[in-house]
Amino acid sequence: MTKPVTFGLLVFPDVEELDFVGPWEVFTMSAEIHRGLRTGVPEPVSHLVGTVAGPIRCAKGMRVLPDCTLADAPPLDVLLVPGGVGTRPLATDTEVLAWVAARAATARWVTSVCTGALVLHAAGVSAGRAVTTHWMFADTLKAKGANVVRDTRYVRDGNLVSAAGVSAGIDMALWLIGQIYGEDHARAVQKGMEYDPAPPYGAG
Amino acid sequence: MTKPVTFGLLVFPDVEELDFVGPWEVFTMSAEIHRGLRTGVPEPVSHLVGTVAGPIRCAKGMRVLPDCTLADAPPLDVLLVPGGVGTRPLATDTEVLAWVAARAATARWVTSVCTGALVLHAAGVSAGRAVTTHWMFADTLKAKGANVVRDTRYVRDGNLVSAAGVSAGIDMALWLIGQIYGEDHARAVQKGMEYDPAPPYGAG
Repeated sequence: MTKPVTFGLLVFPDVEELDFVGPWEVFTMSAEIHRGLRTGVPEPVSHLVGTVAGPIRCAKGMRVLPDCTLADAPPLDVLLVPGGVGTRPLATDTEVLAWVAARAATARWVTSVCTGALVLHAAGVSAGRAVTTHWMFADTLKAKGANVVRDTRYVRDGNLVSAAGVSAGIDMALWLIGQIYGEDHARAVQKGMEYDPAPPYGAG
Repeated sequence: MTKPVTFGLLVFPDVEELDFVGPWEVFTMSAEIHRGLRTGVPEPVSHLVGTVAGPIRCAKGMRVLPDCTLADAPPLDVLLVPGGVGTRPLATDTEVLAWVAARAATARWVTSVCTGALVLHAAGVSAGRAVTTHWMFADTLKAKGANVVRDTRYVRDGNLVSAAGVSAGIDMALWLIGQIYGEDHARAVQKGMEYDPAPPYGAG
């Protein structure tokens, strides 16, 4: 690898916080590990790409500043579309959908977390391909004609990788980092973020 | 419970992104579950409390806007101090340490994630009490005289709950929500964020 891999994470009004910050932590920790271990691999670069300028109010109220806009986002190797209630208006926003379709056509990997899959579907990016989403929205996505896989953390179909709800984006992002930089590197990232999860009260 | 529980998550330059956004997602999802299920319990309220005004640049480059400052933060039932490289200057910042000590004295629960434990220690909040931190900083914290517990996701000692590195804050926050609202509610929050983690490449 001679060029840094560039990750673009879409952010929009009412995007779900952990949907994008989980993968953000994984991608940026990968950069830190490459730097710290002097792997010689160009550090990946991550951008929050805003559908609107200025502070973006997320689904649960956190306000974040995008790094760039749809218009000035750099070429992206990995496109990530998170979920959140804000995906509903996005799925009928022709400007955003055209941008997603165009960027998906040139990206090496196209990914979604949670209801971000609704946006990929609306953009025509996932047509005929296996996808997953938050368990509460599997029926909704299926009713739209999508090829929905249930009860999984993430699904890969070609260069399309979709994660289940919210926290599943962390598992998906780690898997993807392993595909790009190798499993040993992904394990080092996991160790850096001390990702040995132990939900305290068992299954929901 | 007749009054909403108020959570205050400290944010500061170079705070680690997932350290505070993981618990933020847990606390705010709890509010959504209370609202959605009409539990009748007043919805908890979460605030990002900035040590500085304006956009705060996190450790991995994400820029976030605090909801309030040290000076105008409301009374807090739960104080959360996240980690990140920004904890090092914080641990010698007398104004911030005095604020942390004062808020800790009146909070029902005092919590930290990752190297946030260094700040609680410097503020004198955790003196003599069992604490944990990111595995890379356990020796550092112990050398400062802290009572460090290793190889655990989180440790509770009285009203002090400290989590291990980065992602461990999610487990700690879910545990805490279970203590405050009961285990069934915590499981509903976990289900809402589809937290059935499955690290893709095994242990680090």
